[in-house]
Amino acid sequence: MTAPLIHPSAIVNPNAKIGKNVKIGPFCIIHGNVLIGDNSKIDAYSEIGIKTNLGDGSPLVIGHDSHLRSHAVFYESSKFGPGLITGHRVCVRELTRVGQNAQLGSGVDIQGHCTIGDFFRTHNSVHIGQKSKIGNFVWMFPEVLLTNDPNPPSNNLIGPEIGDFSVVAAKTVLLPGVKIGQHCFVGASSLVGIDIPDRKMASGNPAIILGDASIIRMKDDIRIRAYPWNKRFQRGYPEEVVLSWKDN
Amino acid sequence: MTAPLIHPSAIVNPNAKIGKNVKIGPFCIIHGNVLIGDNSKIDAYSEIGIKTNLGDGSPLVIGHDSHLRSHAVFYESSKFGPGLITGHRVCVRELTRVGQNAQLGSGVDIQGHCTIGDFFRTHNSVHIGQKSKIGNFVWMFPEVLLTNDPNPPSNNLIGPEIGDFSVVAAKTVLLPGVKIGQHCFVGASSLVGIDIPDRKMASGNPAIILGDASIIRMKDDIRIRAYPWNKRFQRGYPEEVVLSWKDN
Amino acid sequence: MTAPLIHPSAIVNPNAKIGKNVKIGPFCIIHGNVLIGDNSKIDAYSEIGIKTNLGDGSPLVIGHDSHLRSHAVFYESSKFGPGLITGHRVCVRELTRVGQNAQLGSGVDIQGHCTIGDFFRTHNSVHIGQKSKIGNFVWMFPEVLLTNDPNPPSNNLIGPEIGDFSVVAAKTVLLPGVKIGQHCFVGASSLVGIDIPDRKMASGNPAIILGDASIIRMKDDIRIRAYPWNKRFQRGYPEEVVLSWKDN
Repeated sequence: MTAPLIHPSAIVNPNAKIGKNVKIGPFCIIHGNVLIGDNSKIDAYSEIGIKTNLGDGSPLVIGHDSHLRSHAVFYESSKFGPGLITGHRVCVRELTRVGQNAQLGSGVDIQGHCTIGDFFRTHNSVHIGQKSKIGNFVWMFPEVLLTNDPNPPSNNLIGPEIGDFSVVAAKTVLLPGVKIGQHCFVGASSLVGIDIPDRKMASGNPAIILGDASIIRMKDDIRIRAYPWNKRFQRGYPEEVVLSWKDN
Repeated sequence: MTAPLIHPSAIVNPNAKIGKNVKIGPFCIIHGNVLIGDNSKIDAYSEIGIKTNLGDGSPLVIGHDSHLRSHAVFYESSKFGPGLITGHRVCVRELTRVGQNAQLGSGVDIQGHCTIGDFFRTHNSVHIGQKSKIGNFVWMFPEVLLTNDPNPPSNNLIGPEIGDFSVVAAKTVLLPGVKIGQHCFVGASSLVGIDIPDRKMASGNPAIILGDASIIRMKDDIRIRAYPWNKRFQRGYPEEVVLSWKDN
Repeated sequence: MTAPLIHPSAIVNPNAKIGKNVKIGPFCIIHGNVLIGDNSKIDAYSEIGIKTNLGDGSPLVIGHDSHLRSHAVFYESSKFGPGLITGHRVCVRELTRVGQNAQLGSGVDIQGHCTIGDFFRTHNSVHIGQKSKIGNFVWMFPEVLLTNDPNPPSNNLIGPEIGDFSVVAAKTVLLPGVKIGQHCFVGASSLVGIDIPDRKMASGNPAIILGDASIIRMKDDIRIRAYPWNKRFQRGYPEEVVLSWKDN
């Protein structure tokens, strides 16, 4: 089957560019300035490609083989690589770029002007403030919050930066402009106001650097180091990606 | 009136088992593998019984006299006793069991594989991670978060356990596998990484045990002990339940 | 054009009082006990004027020139001045009064019985508990939480009070009944259990008063004091309002 499978209750602008075998669920609204790749699914109550004068006029691009679960809200002028998978009620604003195979939990909110690498994975209700810069293979757990205004309210927004493979645990806040290196681990409910060098762990409110992330051992087997996590956890990553990790 | 009262805009799978006098609101989607008890209401924009290959094929069961407010998202293979009342935008995943008379605030998110007793009451935006175990008469206040992965990311999920009558105040995080006893009180904005014995209070980031919960006095009348709360607060509990509390 | 512009899929009660040039989006539900001012927009999937026996029978009033973005949930018996702008998925309960030109981020949740002044601005997912009292020109950043029950659960709710021009940074919790003065600054991820006098700054878990808010300098220009913010930031405020600030 190659024709779009659009539920009769959905409202689809004829200008929308919808790939082969795309399914669009009940009560969806698809605006005209969107490009949805082949074999993707948009579930019920989702509004895709909302117009905004804060964008640059470019379309919302959702790569092929993506699945947006219900109640999604996506604006025009953002771009996702293939394989995007979201939970319910995800919201994404304009002028954000996300690489391939992102997995975003329910309630995730990505503000505008963010740059995010490949294989970004978050649990629920993560909030990524404007101008955040996030590397490849980054993990964020529920309710992590990236802020961007050092003197709120102001016009001087500076997003946090997070390096490849780093992990931010649940409910942690990153203050504006903090730089977290690669392969770092930040503990739950922390308030991070300092930069964290590569491969360090930090925790607390305010967060302090506690040492090398590699000192953490697996709770169920203390012979195994927990970090870098990609030495022990490969679930859901393609084989060629796992092979590419050998030198990290 | 005994026939279902289904809004004409709702999409209801003919295989769904819908009890007497059930009301289904506008723009709802009711999938086939659901069982909704008599006299229940499902409000607008709710999607009930979403299929998932993470379930066991059993139906979503919503007990009689329940009321799900709008924008609900419930998966198949979970089961609720009678009298479930929810706020808006509640999300419940598969393989979770919840007892009778649960009251869940808006935005509550219950992940899969949880076991929850009777008369669970939460305020808004509580997040219950997979494999949590929660007793009877437990209270959680806004934005409480139960986590489950001691070495994120991993496959080794261990949910927190919370005993009967315990109270967790706003925005508190429970770390994976912590055990909170019965009749405990955990203060707001805490990070709980230790077990809390029966009838103790704890607070802080990181939380420490501060003493017996019974030392807390009511702010508006210091002659009255605040905990165990069920000695002084019975609003909305059936008389036979309140009588059963006499020995607690 | 002066007639209401109602999408054909919307369900509008004929008793609803809808002003001139009001746009109502797809799949909206407008109940009868509402009054929507001229030139307002209600976006898709919004349910406006939900009946509740916790109200006083008065209508929901949305002032003219308002814009409620999609998935809004508003109850009857609350009242907003003109110029209300919201993000997506905002929820407002009964018996709340909000002044003119409020701007509420996505996911904001305002419980019942709140009193809020003019030009209230929040970022996303702020939760305003019942009986909160908020002045004019107040700012709240993502995930701020105002609580109200000093001995949860109880019937003795006491909302926080916040004075004009004060700022509460991201993820901060205000405990029940705390009083924050005018022109205060409260730092991110704080737990505020003490009153904060006018023009002071406070931060931490638990929060302590750190000094005068005026000692904070702009991160991008240390010659400029960050607070009171209205001396340096006027974006989006009408000229007559900015002029009225000269004596503050």
